[in-house]
Amino acid sequence: MEISLRHVANMLNEAERIVITAHIHPDGDSLGSMLALYASLAAQGKKVWLLLDDEVPAVYRFLPGAELIRRPEGKMEADLLVVLDASDADRVTAVVEAVRAKTLNIDHHISNTKFTDYWYIDSQAAATGEIILDLLHLMKLEITADIAVNLFTAIATDCGFFRYANASSATLRHAADLIDRGARPHVIAEQLETKPLASIMTLRGVLDSLEIHAGGRIATVTVYVDAAENAAETTEGYINYPRNIEGVELAVLFKPVDDNATRVSFRSRRLDVARLALGFGGGGHARAAGCTVASGLAGAKEQILRAAERLLAESGL
Amino acid sequence: MEISLRHVANMLNEAERIVITAHIHPDGDSLGSMLALYASLAAQGKKVWLLLDDEVPAVYRFLPGAELIRRPEGKMEADLLVVLDASDADRVTAVVEAVRAKTLNIDHHISNTKFTDYWYIDSQAAATGEIILDLLHLMKLEITADIAVNLFTAIATDCGFFRYANASSATLRHAADLIDRGARPHVIAEQLETKPLASIMTLRGVLDSLEIHAGGRIATVTVYVDAAENAAETTEGYINYPRNIEGVELAVLFKPVDDNATRVSFRSRRLDVARLALGFGGGGHARAAGCTVASGLAGAKEQILRAAERLLAESGL
Ligand SMILES: [Mn+2]
Ligand SMILES: [Mn+2]
Repeated sequence: MEISLRHVANMLNEAERIVITAHIHPDGDSLGSMLALYASLAAQGKKVWLLLDDEVPAVYRFLPGAELIRRPEGKMEADLLVVLDASDADRVTAVVEAVRAKTLNIDHHISNTKFTDYWYIDSQAAATGEIILDLLHLMKLEITADIAVNLFTAIATDCGFFRYANASSATLRHAADLIDRGARPHVIAEQLETKPLASIMTLRGVLDSLEIHAGGRIATVTVYVDAAENAAETTEGYINYPRNIEGVELAVLFKPVDDNATRVSFRSRRLDVARLALGFGGGGHARAAGCTVASGLAGAKEQILRAAERLLAESGL
Repeated sequence: MEISLRHVANMLNEAERIVITAHIHPDGDSLGSMLALYASLAAQGKKVWLLLDDEVPAVYRFLPGAELIRRPEGKMEADLLVVLDASDADRVTAVVEAVRAKTLNIDHHISNTKFTDYWYIDSQAAATGEIILDLLHLMKLEITADIAVNLFTAIATDCGFFRYANASSATLRHAADLIDRGARPHVIAEQLETKPLASIMTLRGVLDSLEIHAGGRIATVTVYVDAAENAAETTEGYINYPRNIEGVELAVLFKPVDDNATRVSFRSRRLDVARLALGFGGGGHARAAGCTVASGLAGAKEQILRAAERLLAESGL
């Protein structure tokens, strides 16, 4: 059932035992939103748990409270399970199975599949963090410096630090509000951008793998990473290199997993890459999406390039 | 003479023939501020000239009106010469010599040397573009979409797209205001980030040149560019690679000019690099500065590293 933000506030006010979760392969928005909502509700004396069926990537471990996020262990009961920034049941399976509670989804993905008991979806928001900020204002809850850092990170990471099409004037005003409450953009940016020397060396390899297709409209790169290394934190930056080349409409990053799986990320300027990802069982935003192809690198590359060239032709680009 | 922003407005209102200039090696702030002020004053029917003793770098040629910027040719007379975003007479020599007029400096550099007849310096502003926006509001001048694009670019480029320490809540609110008036951050970001394929190849060379000094606290890179290529547009991005390495306090980019000149750029996290640059006759901001060393690459590297290690020691970093 679709509900208003006021109704969301009422449900949170009434619940005493609240579990907060978000999608697997967590990003700054899902983690920052989880931690901000947690801090606000816990400060009211409620019993609140942060459950996530994934690791917190190293780059986000600076977020205040990140160490409180746990994987689900066994079954539990609660009054409310809040599912943040997830558009699809497949992305929160383990936690939803583990927790017996009413489910409430707060999200900003236009592709949201409305899979919970209650939902509040604002596809105008650049990030779930923007919705959480509005919610905290509505609930008249204090926005501490720690909450501000979490929400600023949530908002900034989902709009490419205000460089993506979803960065609206409201997004920048929300961010300004969070600066006034203690978020320091340069400290957050430094955390997000700091990389070990090894990753500069990986970048060199990525640039070596650059291929240009479709008369310069598609640029692909491949990144080989140790299986143990966390996927989310390495992929993000590398795909911008092909993306920013003059004339490139579609940037693709391939990450070979094994002979039967290749993770693929897409970035574009005008092309709807969510459509492309959806065709391979993935998802995401119009200009940033991803999927996993059930094939080794060569096969995945062939399938993706074929689909991509078709989409380019259909889109008249 | 130091004057108020109201006094600046009065001087602009009274002047009929106005020349606008900014510092050599122009950046997004100096160019965007020039073009925004030009459009506002020209719309009032004043005679306005845009003079600059340098080329407009290719990356900034998308700015509305950029084609109106000319080099000074011969002497001329005007009521007012407005010098934007320049902290020092040395950076505007040719235009100041060519134009006979009262001079007014509008700037945000804390290191400003107060070299004009009148000046308005707001070192709290992240960019001269922020001051110009306040000025246009004060003068009740219309902020068109073209002016918004110029001022958004001015502000965004001087604060690293809201990632530097100078990005205040006021900076983000100014930017939000400009979005409401027609600036589109993603369109501007795309223009600023789009690079020819050749520059990705240059990046590979830059990464190959990476050196680590002072136990990992200093990282240097060298970029060799064709003398014909514009300096400003190539340097900007490359220095972030050493800057973002874990543990690096000072990133240095060397750009050999000839046997007797090496251009040097500095970026830091905590170190005052304006001091470092000043020691070699350069200047800039606390976290981003530059200079030219009168030596070939090897000599420049030696001098800079010696001074940098001394500064690190003095700063206790
Ligand atoms: Mn999100
Ligand atoms: Mn400036």
